[in-house]
Parts: sequence; structure tokens; C-alpha cells
Amino acid sequence: MIKYPNGGSFSPTSKKSKPHKHIASAANRGMSFEDAINQSNEFYLERDIAVITKRPTPINVVKVDYSHGAKITHAYFEKQSTTDYNGVYKGRYLDFEAKSSKNPTSFPLNNITPHQIKHLERVLKHGGIAFFLIELTSLHEVYYLSAEYVINFYHHAKRKSIPIKDIKKSGYLIKPTLLPRYHYLAVVDKLL
Amino acid sequence: MIKYPNGGSFSPTSKKSKPHKHIASAANRGMSFEDAINQSNEFYLERDIAVITKRPTPINVVKVDYSHGAKITHAYFEKQSTTDYNGVYKGRYLDFEAKSSKNPTSFPLNNITPHQIKHLERVLKHGGIAFFLIELTSLHEVYYLSAEYVINFYHHAKRKSIPIKDIKKSGYLIKPTLLPRYHYLAVVDKLL
Repeated sequence: MIKYPNGGSFSPTSKKSKPHKHIASAANRGMSFEDAINQSNEFYLERDIAVITKRPTPINVVKVDYSHGAKITHAYFEKQSTTDYNGVYKGRYLDFEAKSSKNPTSFPLNNITPHQIKHLERVLKHGGIAFFLIELTSLHEVYYLSAEYVINFYHHAKRKSIPIKDIKKSGYLIKPTLLPRYHYLAVVDKLL
Repeated sequence: MIKYPNGGSFSPTSKKSKPHKHIASAANRGMSFEDAINQSNEFYLERDIAVITKRPTPINVVKVDYSHGAKITHAYFEKQSTTDYNGVYKGRYLDFEAKSSKNPTSFPLNNITPHQIKHLERVLKHGGIAFFLIELTSLHEVYYLSAEYVINFYHHAKRKSIPIKDIKKSGYLIKPTLLPRYHYLAVVDKLL
């Protein structure tokens, strides 16, 4: 397993986004993007549509105090070397990463680690379904973008960010609904 | 997502097994069962056979000190509400739990939570491949036991532990090799 140094100089986006102020977008009505995805997955689970779960944030535990149960007193966040979500839908393996971007013109690829690209390449090679869900907060829009597209852009494009016009052209807009908040499996169905 | 109370009165097996003394068995030559599974998965990954990863242990973070990077100063282990491992093999979704038991006559089902049973039922319903890898440390043996078998036993058997003779009859012995330590995908191949 790939281990990152425990510099303690970073915390993963998913954890970082919570304590900080969240600019409520019309698209998610105050719900964080992560919460919206989790709510959608919960809906899929309860309706027996799919089993898709969020991988817990990996944490490097340095010290545990066993004097009162098991209290962790020293630990660091680690970077996810894979993606945040995976699961099973219609027998198929499904794997995706959800990312928010405030950038009004493009989606910066430094949001994605080389390990995540490598992981998604492997998933595709083994016949899995892989994609990104990208929230463009400035537009209040969420897009499904295939991992193939992102990987290809990552390796071959000269620029280090995907222009929003390209996301609009090559991705699929997912309009928010009450339940599930983002029905991304509708796009998976379309592409299967 | 199912949340457990942060009683702090437990720590998951995977974490617990590390600080404590581990009785080295001939089968794994001093390597913990978890490490042996991880090594096998690493082998599958490097040889481009499958992408199977361990879900990080979920940790409930109570307090983070941001004065020197992001140091977690107060947190608790949570119980995994799913299984420890999942991934993709030949396009199929694969999901399993690895458990060690020192019991010389049977495998106690209290090793498995109701949430894990429910999760595995759902995985099977959606066409995934689901199973248990059970290390019987007293015998120095590792068995592949289908989730179907365990779920059926869990719901219908009167006793609360699976006799070892039944595991031997209904499971598949996985002999240790150098690389991968436990070639459990050979059993998956046989059953596919």
C-alpha cells in the first residue's frame, strides 16, 4: 500500500471542507457536496438500487490512550491513495471521485493526485466503471465526467486544468433533485 | 451511513491485533493475517490481476490541533459498517471480510456484525462476489468461505458458531505461498 509521509501539513479535502465556511450554492441548497453524494448513496442503498460506500479518510494513528477505553491522542490525516467512493451496481464495479471547484473558468487538475489517476487507470483496465463527479460551485452545477476523459486530458493536454466549456461538452450535467440529490446512476445507465 | 456511538470502549480487530502480541503461525510465518492479505492484494495490483483495497479503519475525529499542521488530538475508532476489503476483478465487484479465530473447534459468529451481514446480503443481491477469508490460527489454516454460506448459517443455524468441520467441508483451504501469500482469487476463479 502506498504510504504518504505524515507531515501533518495537509488534511484531506473531505475533512477540510467541514470546519470551514461553506458557500451554499443553489444546486445543493446549503448541503455540502460530500453530504449530497452520501445522501444519494444512502438513497440507492435504501431503495436497493446499488451499494456504494465512501471510503473512510485514512488516518495514521500515532498514539492511543487505553486508560479510558481507546482514545486516540495523536494522529494525522493521510491522503487517500485511491478514490473516495466505490461499490457495486448491476454486478459491475463502480469507482469515482467527487470534487468541488470554485474556479469559474476551469477545473484544476492539481485537485487529483497521480495515485488517483493510476488507480482509475487500473479500475478501467479491469473492467470497472470509473468517473468523476465535479461540482462547479461558481455555476451551481454538477457534472459527470468519465475517468477516461480526465485520464486522457491529464496525460496529453498541455494545460493543467480542464476548461469548463470542455466539461460542459464532454461531461453530463446532473441536475439536483430531492431524492437522490444527484442521480448520477442515471448517467451510468445511459453509458452502460 | 450507519454511525456507531463513540463509546471508545472498543477498537476494531485490525487495529487491536497490532499492538498486542501476535502468535506466529506456521501458515503465515510471523506475518499477521491482515498483512498477509495486504501483501496478496499488493501482488495482485502489481501484476495487474485485480484492484482490491482495504478500507481504512473509520475514525471519529473529535479535535484537531491546527497550530502545527493538522494534528488530531482527540479521536475514537469506529466499527466498520461494511467489510474490510473490496475491489474489482475481471469486471466484477468483489467484497470480503478477513477474520482470524483462535478457537480450535469453531468460528464464533460474534466476530461478524449484523451490519456486515446486511452489507454482504446487499452485495450478493447486486451481483457482487462476496466471501470470508478465515484464519484458524490453532490449525495454521486459512479458508475461503462464501458469504452465502455464512449468511445462511447466521440466519438459520441454531448455534452461534460455525464448527470447524463445516468450514472444512463447505470452505476452500487456501495454502500459503510466497507470492501472493494467500492466492484467494484462485478460489474465485474456480467458482466464477
